[in-house]
Amino acid sequence: LPLPSDVSWRFAQANFQPVDVADQLTALLTVEEIAACLELLPLIRRTEIFDYLPDGIQEAVAGVVSLDSLMELLEELPSDSAADLFNYLSPDQQADLLKDLPARNRATIQHLSSYPSGTAGALMTSEISLLPTGINVQRALEILRRTATGSETIYHTYIVDPRHRLVGVVSLRELILAPPKASLDKLMTEELVTILPDEHQQEAARLVSRYDLLALPVVDESQRLLGIITYDDAMDVVEEEDTEDIHLSASVAPLETGLLRTSLVNLYRSRVMWLILLIFANLVSGVGIAFFEDTISAKVALVFFLPLLIGSGGNAGAQASTLMVRGLAVGDVGLGDWTRLLGRELLVAGALGLTMAIAVSPIGMFRGGTDIALVVGLSMVVIVLFGSLLGMSLPFLLHRLKWDPATASTPLVTTLADAGGVVTYFALATWLLGLH
Amino acid sequence: LPLPSDVSWRFAQANFQPVDVADQLTALLTVEEIAACLELLPLIRRTEIFDYLPDGIQEAVAGVVSLDSLMELLEELPSDSAADLFNYLSPDQQADLLKDLPARNRATIQHLSSYPSGTAGALMTSEISLLPTGINVQRALEILRRTATGSETIYHTYIVDPRHRLVGVVSLRELILAPPKASLDKLMTEELVTILPDEHQQEAARLVSRYDLLALPVVDESQRLLGIITYDDAMDVVEEEDTEDIHLSASVAPLETGLLRTSLVNLYRSRVMWLILLIFANLVSGVGIAFFEDTISAKVALVFFLPLLIGSGGNAGAQASTLMVRGLAVGDVGLGDWTRLLGRELLVAGALGLTMAIAVSPIGMFRGGTDIALVVGLSMVVIVLFGSLLGMSLPFLLHRLKWDPATASTPLVTTLADAGGVVTYFALATWLLGLH
Repeated sequence: LPLPSDVSWRFAQANFQPVDVADQLTALLTVEEIAACLELLPLIRRTEIFDYLPDGIQEAVAGVVSLDSLMELLEELPSDSAADLFNYLSPDQQADLLKDLPARNRATIQHLSSYPSGTAGALMTSEISLLPTGINVQRALEILRRTATGSETIYHTYIVDPRHRLVGVVSLRELILAPPKASLDKLMTEELVTILPDEHQQEAARLVSRYDLLALPVVDESQRLLGIITYDDAMDVVEEEDTEDIHLSASVAPLETGLLRTSLVNLYRSRVMWLILLIFANLVSGVGIAFFEDTISAKVALVFFLPLLIGSGGNAGAQASTLMVRGLAVGDVGLGDWTRLLGRELLVAGALGLTMAIAVSPIGMFRGGTDIALVVGLSMVVIVLFGSLLGMSLPFLLHRLKWDPATASTPLVTTLADAGGVVTYFALATWLLGLH
Repeated sequence: LPLPSDVSWRFAQANFQPVDVADQLTALLTVEEIAACLELLPLIRRTEIFDYLPDGIQEAVAGVVSLDSLMELLEELPSDSAADLFNYLSPDQQADLLKDLPARNRATIQHLSSYPSGTAGALMTSEISLLPTGINVQRALEILRRTATGSETIYHTYIVDPRHRLVGVVSLRELILAPPKASLDKLMTEELVTILPDEHQQEAARLVSRYDLLALPVVDESQRLLGIITYDDAMDVVEEEDTEDIHLSASVAPLETGLLRTSLVNLYRSRVMWLILLIFANLVSGVGIAFFEDTISAKVALVFFLPLLIGSGGNAGAQASTLMVRGLAVGDVGLGDWTRLLGRELLVAGALGLTMAIAVSPIGMFRGGTDIALVVGLSMVVIVLFGSLLGMSLPFLLHRLKWDPATASTPLVTTLADAGGVVTYFALATWLLGLH
């Protein structure tokens, strides 16, 4: 895209999808330039593009534009995005804006911005297309045509009773195909998947994906309809939550923005805490080694197999914990499956341990004879079993304690399995080789 | 749900969503029982539930039902699911079915089942709602009403020229709101995001998510419309691909089905190959240690710090590779960002290494005096830098070689970083402590 000073920018951007323009702006321009570019555009286009800017850039742009521009954005954005933008502002800006906003927008924004980020409530939009009970299809289509511009989607319309309680849903497809005089109450579907506003956004995304919904209604305890979560927002949540889980799996704290846009300080912060903690966890292995210093001095050849043995325990543990963390995240396994999974893991890890013992024994034989081969092989079986059971149990334990199971990261499991591996190996060696 | 022998099952299941019934059947019953349960239901309901059964169960059920039942399923299923089912069948079954299928279904199934699994073509459905050019809105709505039952979605309708080339799209919302006499050609949107049938399904899902599409049209090189990929199928692909990447991150080969449904043999197979490979990679560390056996004998206290130092290099490397693999997977970073990311990683890993050296030096001082503290601190900086640069580079290299970057799994990076760590540590110790 040409630079913002160039008026031809206005023409150039019109050929691109809003998300692509937003990406280009973010990649190439400073915050002030982005704000200047946006000011050149008509309000609807400007709002579309702004809505696709990353959160951090939205926040920064909101800090440099005029209060009038902010007001226009807040009025034009879908209510869920407007509430997010509102939450980025300073308390002073918030107070100034609330004073001047039309009453209807003010109420919506205050309501939506009150839900903590990460909940279903914070994800929902209040631009819902609604119909009353007791009308026919023709009347329903008339109402839809009149109110369509204010709704995020009209493909599913929700039917509410006079107390605003959700009683059913009807799709535009059903309305179009039904005879005009048919009763809406007979046409609508009454079995609805819904969610409470304080549930986790991941649960909302899971429901949308599982039931192939276009939109998921959010209701309060008395079934009153508060808003809807659309499939595209649910898709964004899936990507966001998976990224968070994947980063946690390597002991990286969640990043607010993409890898290239995160500041070096934040990148450092997201990594340093776990690395330091793991140093101290690794000390346990060091203490284990120090305890067996006599064994090591008596048979230095044993150290040759140390990385291989403890590495294998850590790797098997990493596999087991990763399988379990993902299984819990996608709802594939639950707390009740614990005993069944334990039995399966015992069998699989036992078989893996035996296979690896067979693979490693010839090396033991070659480096130190039958004795060493026996110690190394036996250690392998015990260490792989220990690592695997640790790896599968830790996510369950964390889940039970209401922690994120993904905290059972590969480095954590590996480190703990290492400590167990060191002790197992040298204890078996001391005992079997009579080195004490 | 009651058992299949119980006729009340037919009534009980009617109160549940098809996906929930499919899950219950899978969890509680044998393949024969599932087939028997399905036979009790009317065709449409039976098909809906069958469509939600996991692939492996669909395949097994297809093996025990009659050819007539299969035929009914193939005719009733959405074309993408029918093509998948067809691919599960034996060549004999396929030939028998093709003979008896109506010509239209036969052509569709043969065409769709020809795309290899994992491509956009294999994901698409051919039940598209289509309109010709040169008509008005009223006529368009008439056509839609008449053809709606054969389409997977009518919310986006595609406009094709007489040679079946895609020229535009119109949403049902636009049709409903436009005056009946308006020209469809003026109303339609001509800028369309499309995909070729042989592209990877992950790219299709990325486009659907990025552009918030309800459906993504699949076209051939001459712009002829072949099918569409709907948002719900795209969501399933995102989950599937993320699961595959997460499993790979711990060196687990992709599983076909969920954790509880995978057979023990498959679970063993998905884990054993990498574990054995990593044993041999770990031998490098062992050889490194053997090479420095004299250093170790001269200063056994050095072994105390071995797990801690090589563990830290592995952990920092795991963080760096995980950040990079995910960044590449979501399209957040590209091959062109390599130099910029290398510079950033150097700075961040340098800072991390220094912090960790400072954290670990007092322990070195306490265990072995200034000399050991110096060796341990210096080794920490070098090892963390080495691990991090290795971790960030390996995914890039694999991506460049057209391998899946996720193959740069945490265990692989950890193992390679370990080997580098062993050599660095003992070499520095030998040199600084004058132990050679």
